[in-house]
Amino acid sequence: MTTTPVHHLPPAYEPTAEITALIARRVPGLCLEAPFYTSEDMLAIDISEIFAKHWIFVATDAEIPEPGDYLTISVGPHSVILLRDDDEEISALHNVCRHRGARILNDPSGSVGNLVCGYHHWTYGSDGSLLHADSQPKDFDKTLFGLRKVAVQSVAGLIFICLSNAPPEDFASVATRIEPYLAPHQLRRTKVAAQVDLVEDGNWKLVMENNRECYHCDGHPELSCSLFPTYGYEPDGLPPRLRPAYDRYLAAEADLIQRCMEHDLPYQQIQELRGRATGFRIQREPMDGAGASFSPDGTPLSSKLLGELTEPTLGRLSMHWQPNAWFHVLSDHAVTFSVLPLAPNKTLLRTTWLVHEDAVEGEDYDLEDLKRVWQRTNEQDQTFVRRAQLGVTSPAYIPGPYAPNEYQVEDFCSWYIERLRVGTGMEGES
Amino acid sequence: MTTTPVHHLPPAYEPTAEITALIARRVPGLCLEAPFYTSEDMLAIDISEIFAKHWIFVATDAEIPEPGDYLTISVGPHSVILLRDDDEEISALHNVCRHRGARILNDPSGSVGNLVCGYHHWTYGSDGSLLHADSQPKDFDKTLFGLRKVAVQSVAGLIFICLSNAPPEDFASVATRIEPYLAPHQLRRTKVAAQVDLVEDGNWKLVMENNRECYHCDGHPELSCSLFPTYGYEPDGLPPRLRPAYDRYLAAEADLIQRCMEHDLPYQQIQELRGRATGFRIQREPMDGAGASFSPDGTPLSSKLLGELTEPTLGRLSMHWQPNAWFHVLSDHAVTFSVLPLAPNKTLLRTTWLVHEDAVEGEDYDLEDLKRVWQRTNEQDQTFVRRAQLGVTSPAYIPGPYAPNEYQVEDFCSWYIERLRVGTGMEGES
Amino acid sequence: MTTTPVHHLPPAYEPTAEITALIARRVPGLCLEAPFYTSEDMLAIDISEIFAKHWIFVATDAEIPEPGDYLTISVGPHSVILLRDDDEEISALHNVCRHRGARILNDPSGSVGNLVCGYHHWTYGSDGSLLHADSQPKDFDKTLFGLRKVAVQSVAGLIFICLSNAPPEDFASVATRIEPYLAPHQLRRTKVAAQVDLVEDGNWKLVMENNRECYHCDGHPELSCSLFPTYGYEPDGLPPRLRPAYDRYLAAEADLIQRCMEHDLPYQQIQELRGRATGFRIQREPMDGAGASFSPDGTPLSSKLLGELTEPTLGRLSMHWQPNAWFHVLSDHAVTFSVLPLAPNKTLLRTTWLVHEDAVEGEDYDLEDLKRVWQRTNEQDQTFVRRAQLGVTSPAYIPGPYAPNEYQVEDFCSWYIERLRVGTGMEGES
Repeated sequence: MTTTPVHHLPPAYEPTAEITALIARRVPGLCLEAPFYTSEDMLAIDISEIFAKHWIFVATDAEIPEPGDYLTISVGPHSVILLRDDDEEISALHNVCRHRGARILNDPSGSVGNLVCGYHHWTYGSDGSLLHADSQPKDFDKTLFGLRKVAVQSVAGLIFICLSNAPPEDFASVATRIEPYLAPHQLRRTKVAAQVDLVEDGNWKLVMENNRECYHCDGHPELSCSLFPTYGYEPDGLPPRLRPAYDRYLAAEADLIQRCMEHDLPYQQIQELRGRATGFRIQREPMDGAGASFSPDGTPLSSKLLGELTEPTLGRLSMHWQPNAWFHVLSDHAVTFSVLPLAPNKTLLRTTWLVHEDAVEGEDYDLEDLKRVWQRTNEQDQTFVRRAQLGVTSPAYIPGPYAPNEYQVEDFCSWYIERLRVGTGMEGES
Repeated sequence: MTTTPVHHLPPAYEPTAEITALIARRVPGLCLEAPFYTSEDMLAIDISEIFAKHWIFVATDAEIPEPGDYLTISVGPHSVILLRDDDEEISALHNVCRHRGARILNDPSGSVGNLVCGYHHWTYGSDGSLLHADSQPKDFDKTLFGLRKVAVQSVAGLIFICLSNAPPEDFASVATRIEPYLAPHQLRRTKVAAQVDLVEDGNWKLVMENNRECYHCDGHPELSCSLFPTYGYEPDGLPPRLRPAYDRYLAAEADLIQRCMEHDLPYQQIQELRGRATGFRIQREPMDGAGASFSPDGTPLSSKLLGELTEPTLGRLSMHWQPNAWFHVLSDHAVTFSVLPLAPNKTLLRTTWLVHEDAVEGEDYDLEDLKRVWQRTNEQDQTFVRRAQLGVTSPAYIPGPYAPNEYQVEDFCSWYIERLRVGTGMEGES
Repeated sequence: MTTTPVHHLPPAYEPTAEITALIARRVPGLCLEAPFYTSEDMLAIDISEIFAKHWIFVATDAEIPEPGDYLTISVGPHSVILLRDDDEEISALHNVCRHRGARILNDPSGSVGNLVCGYHHWTYGSDGSLLHADSQPKDFDKTLFGLRKVAVQSVAGLIFICLSNAPPEDFASVATRIEPYLAPHQLRRTKVAAQVDLVEDGNWKLVMENNRECYHCDGHPELSCSLFPTYGYEPDGLPPRLRPAYDRYLAAEADLIQRCMEHDLPYQQIQELRGRATGFRIQREPMDGAGASFSPDGTPLSSKLLGELTEPTLGRLSMHWQPNAWFHVLSDHAVTFSVLPLAPNKTLLRTTWLVHEDAVEGEDYDLEDLKRVWQRTNEQDQTFVRRAQLGVTSPAYIPGPYAPNEYQVEDFCSWYIERLRVGTGMEGES
């Protein structure tokens, strides 16, 4: 008789008394306390409660364009195969052989037919079903040993996975609401112009927090050509020095709204960064200068606009995604950013530049020009994040107050604490 | 008055509730659960319960041929001096000065007279007795401060140590039974032709398990010239494709038995891999091709046969040793393999090639030819072990079933669990 | 309303039962047990109870001679800014921005005006007060957000800090007693000729213990030209071979005392290595050879004597400082040594050579000659410490007895245990 597999699930993580206290006593308006950024135990909670129970952005359709194309994605100790199957659908499977647990695909990307474990040649279909296992007893039941599946959804060309068996149900409604913003850019008809993996010496939350405010944007000279320096300010809280920029912003915003209405493009801000599992923010926002792209003067960086777009000056469609991503989708290209924890003080930031699938490097776009702003901005942010990590590691660190223009950082932290409270059964206690 | 040394022994390791549960619930026929391969706590148990309480293979007589020759062997945090003394006997001593604890010998091998600690010149004889310590009070009692001894036995040229003060008593009977198989090869009259240390990126048990089956031997093209691919199969479980190889195997086996009887060599399988402290397996088995050695065509790799042997076609005398070794002893050379844990996911595999002490490199044997099969096989296994370690680290890993031809892996795992149950006082509970 | 910062102090470290037992059962006269040198938990206690609650030596006035000059010092997870302010006073501040915790100064040394955090430009004065923070609400109270201060004292040019809010009060009296010994050398009028950071592969206590005895000084051929090999011996415990050296020592001592009386220099030993928070030892001791400096023949290494000194043959003013420093102050130069833990088995030893501020390299002193003895001695000690760390890591390690000439090591260990007992509330229990 075949031995039936028995899976002793890892016990639900039991937070220590110290961690429970940290979650319970978080003070709104202040930074998180140090152990949220430095503790191994806390990272284990972040993996199990945040990354394994929420929809996380991991890749784009453009990275696996053809049947058989795959990526392997590491989410903490998990390894997930993202695969385009023969029906051109995307499937996501745990990269763990059901025989003796060997990792099946060992490259970051590639192309395969069936999934064959290199150890004892157990062979799985692209849907994860076990097709063949040599040397088994006659009563071996292959149907019990398919690769374990991971929930996966592509929204307008952006691929999200959820490692939980019970993914948050609000994803469908969020997808319905963001899809009309993204659809005109036709990201499924793009190609990857570049992808850069940057390892930051800081906790993943510091990487996210850093992206949620522009209080530090003085440190981004290249980006500052494109973004208005008024980001995050309420009009009545504007420092006088920013008044001219704000007037410029108002004119650009009015112009952008006019254009969006002409082209029937949604532009209104939706900001639901907390109070729900799938926290997000989406908005079409004006850009400074010519208003089309991340170039020094704001003109397009790729002459081949995305999808069927004909109007370059569409500002940037910006989207934040909790816990782990942000996006800038322009008329001429798109940039996606995914954040994945490696250690309490190590985080992978993956940046992907997408252009029209027919755009030709050297003709339609210059690769270095295309990458310049975000490559440099990421490197500048890497320095900020490293210094923040070093600082909060000191026992002398006291969580300080967020300024009004850091309200999205506060929203991120509040969402994070909300989700930990829900996940660890403290819901309603705050 | 001299202060008498007081040794507060490290407390017997108290396994956590989680580890006790893991040991208790192990399901026969399935792989071990992930923490056995990934947890620091489990490695500490493996060191204290398995490696420090059993006889482990660490070296060969040939590595310390002359009086004064020594090796230092690391077994987890232990460092042991293996020394051939002036009487040509082998002694084993803890490599820790009794003054302030400094490591005395700091090279992996060498030659010494007395053992002199480099820090304050405390000087010990080759039996570990303290001969001299400068600057001590008059009532200092040197007899209290000898180096601590380690149990050591050489069986036919293979050196085993046991770090426990109460080594398993069944070793003597095992030695008596294996010695006649080994003796004709006269390993004490060999020399080391080569020794290679390979660090594998996997738990020590994955290294051992990998060696206990040939289900994966398709991945060893060089080794497959020598081993019959039917290894581990019951005759009625043979896949049809292996039928011709099996017929070849039966003919070679009959021929080998005939030859062994002619030369009065024991060949029968003894397989006692579980149910005892000193688990082992020994058998003289036929080899494919010419049947003499690990060459592509099966002919000898050294023209100087071991000991007084005159008949090259003696197959391979293979021995498994639990917890940490395996051996292939042929007519023309021998290969020993020892496995020592470095971290939950790091293991040292030391491979030693022995030839007749009078064999001359370049005349009697070509060193690269001699090493080729096992060097490549080890490297191939290193890949398998690395992938297995990566896979079982995923929370999605579910222990899968062993196939019938993996029965020795099951035996190894069952022995391991038996020993942990005995060591942690759970004996009889399974 | 501005959110007031709330500081949830890290809870006072609660030693585990095992650690409490280790502290309680320490046997005087024997080395410490292994976990004191190997355990992460114990290092955390060492940081919080020893390094954060005592006065530690970290630098010299000569390293920050001008207003604006700063050093950043890492004490475990702490980063401290040592700064000479506009009034030429030394201040010490935690290097952690009060906004989001970023590390403010990121170089080991340099020169600044105000302290500006690179992240969001919060700007502090050299006294730590917050001068400016952009984008804050109108009711933001800057006085609540100054950099946290660290207690700091310079004694005759040696800078000590204490991370505790309640530094040991006996420091003032110790300072009063050591100042007259140091003052004639006018260390505030020196410059740094060289500074070498050496990372030792051993626990910080092994580094300190190694320095507290000369039983191992056979291993220091260069240093042995200067030190009498009788160091640490009682006259009636002298080995006969050291008799001639002892006679030489007695003559040199008599000569030194005579000279000190002539120049009105204090020379008497004060030895209070235990029984108080600020354990120390100071004494002017004769040197071998010409008796002036660490040269092969004992003659000066810098022709420009320190301060207003005119007499070169003043032996060495040696000072030990618990927990973390020692000093050799000569007529022609001074050498300071500070010890800071990096990990249970990693320690930073910083050695600084000071010469008269007007001494010219290549004219008054040769830099390589100046550094030779202590650079080589440190490297030799690095080997001893590495071997000691390796040895005590073995489960076979048994704490051995200190010899009479290791009494200062015993004093150091007893002081350390005393301080742990006081810090963890076990006072009076021993």
